[in-house]
Amino acid sequence: MNLDAINLGFALGLLDQIGVLVFAVSGGIVAVRAKMDPLGVLVLSFLPALGGGTLRDLILDAPVFWLSDSRYLLMVMFGAILAWIFGTRVEDFKPIRWADAVGLALFAVAGTAKAIGLGHSITIAVIMGGVTASAGGLLRDVVAGREPMLLKQDIYATAALLGGLGYALSDRAGLSFELSTLIGFSLAFTLRACAIRFGWSLPQAK
Amino acid sequence: MNLDAINLGFALGLLDQIGVLVFAVSGGIVAVRAKMDPLGVLVLSFLPALGGGTLRDLILDAPVFWLSDSRYLLMVMFGAILAWIFGTRVEDFKPIRWADAVGLALFAVAGTAKAIGLGHSITIAVIMGGVTASAGGLLRDVVAGREPMLLKQDIYATAALLGGLGYALSDRAGLSFELSTLIGFSLAFTLRACAIRFGWSLPQAK
Amino acid sequence: MNLDAINLGFALGLLDQIGVLVFAVSGGIVAVRAKMDPLGVLVLSFLPALGGGTLRDLILDAPVFWLSDSRYLLMVMFGAILAWIFGTRVEDFKPIRWADAVGLALFAVAGTAKAIGLGHSITIAVIMGGVTASAGGLLRDVVAGREPMLLKQDIYATAALLGGLGYALSDRAGLSFELSTLIGFSLAFTLRACAIRFGWSLPQAK
Repeated sequence: MNLDAINLGFALGLLDQIGVLVFAVSGGIVAVRAKMDPLGVLVLSFLPALGGGTLRDLILDAPVFWLSDSRYLLMVMFGAILAWIFGTRVEDFKPIRWADAVGLALFAVAGTAKAIGLGHSITIAVIMGGVTASAGGLLRDVVAGREPMLLKQDIYATAALLGGLGYALSDRAGLSFELSTLIGFSLAFTLRACAIRFGWSLPQAK
Repeated sequence: MNLDAINLGFALGLLDQIGVLVFAVSGGIVAVRAKMDPLGVLVLSFLPALGGGTLRDLILDAPVFWLSDSRYLLMVMFGAILAWIFGTRVEDFKPIRWADAVGLALFAVAGTAKAIGLGHSITIAVIMGGVTASAGGLLRDVVAGREPMLLKQDIYATAALLGGLGYALSDRAGLSFELSTLIGFSLAFTLRACAIRFGWSLPQAK
Repeated sequence: MNLDAINLGFALGLLDQIGVLVFAVSGGIVAVRAKMDPLGVLVLSFLPALGGGTLRDLILDAPVFWLSDSRYLLMVMFGAILAWIFGTRVEDFKPIRWADAVGLALFAVAGTAKAIGLGHSITIAVIMGGVTASAGGLLRDVVAGREPMLLKQDIYATAALLGGLGYALSDRAGLSFELSTLIGFSLAFTLRACAIRFGWSLPQAK
């Protein structure tokens, strides 16, 4: 691993951790609202925050990322505590949706970048970005017995796939990691933001 | 890997891909009927088509098969498109059940053969045939919030286990790959066909 | 691997198998009561008995433990048969809850010990104890379409985490494997027993 790879690893790790905190808080709030106990809040903080990346690492046969870096688990615990304290006081769901959109865009880029770093094709990398960004939320919904947002609601995983594709193509075109990340993040966040703000959704089969 | 192993790998790959297309279509039709958007159709095509084999490969610590062979993902996408176009026009569920029975038998044999090829015992191999054939459908049902067909409905995974056992014993008896596959496929398909046609089912506990 | 490691492996294997039988019976009884067929009983025996340990091994990238030791699958089959025969005759749920508490404590210690043996930190090891003890039951509930006990009910995974922590700290303090196991088991079982007997539970968010 050369110096560039180390910097890239550091930058990806930082992105991952911001996303982890955001997703942990939003998962924990679901648990708090459902009147779960602290362990339930912790589990529902864990699933969206680390579940998607765990599945990605299992499929790619990479070491599961949070085993060797305790900051991820600390972020989950911190997010669960924030959700526990503030979860019932937040009257309005909107801030959560926007924080979730930031996490979605961050995870999509981080997941795509990790798969590319492991030598996988653009197709596989973009799918892994989608898995990283949305599989954790799917697990959260399935475990909490809610209808999976992923399957019915407006553009969600689609935004992750677009962001991942933007990153992957920018990277392939020779742009820097920073610029590729910015492009991928912006694409995913903008599409998701439009879906939230303007009610965009994909068409159903007729 | 010698020449025989390569031919065996090729034949298994072909079987896998036919099964993948069939399962992707049947999963996609579930999504189309539930009025999901294209991304939901893609996810519900993916789960039964590649989910069981993915779980098999994770448990056996083999490289996940669709990472290195993009034809599988193309098949899923093709199956999802077919489901999207024709899903609401198919009035009768029966053709889907028969196509599903073909996929079940193909996956049972392919999963068993892969585990044997990796040096596992007949017991493990037959279980892996069952996992390959039925875990994907279980994931589809759990994610779609439907009652898992696997647990209550008539003979399904049982047919996969019988087919896997037929393949494994034929292989152990020294029969060729082609003949063993034919025997395993016929056993699984016939038992499943009888379950569909004559309403066969296993007894419940009294 | 030296002699001590072999003895430790043997002792852990024995613990694991007692826990497997207990969990298989309790899972099978859920299936029998829900009028599932024998295959459904087998699947619902398998999930709590081997599901948690399987997830632990996948995350730790260790060989899945029941692939190389057929006694585990025999135990699951034996437990499923016991559940099939006696499942509808047991009028009272209470013995199952106590057997489940024994399994919980055994799995928590065995899972923690395995992760420590693989060189992981106490934090990771304790989490893996919790995963081993409670993820299988979570899978059982999700697949059976029941509300996950883990998330809402009284102290369950919390007892597993406490037992794992007791084992890990005893082990770190230089106590023998036997004594550490006894301490961890006693802590987990006692806390779970108090939760059952006195209705202890964790507070909900206000």
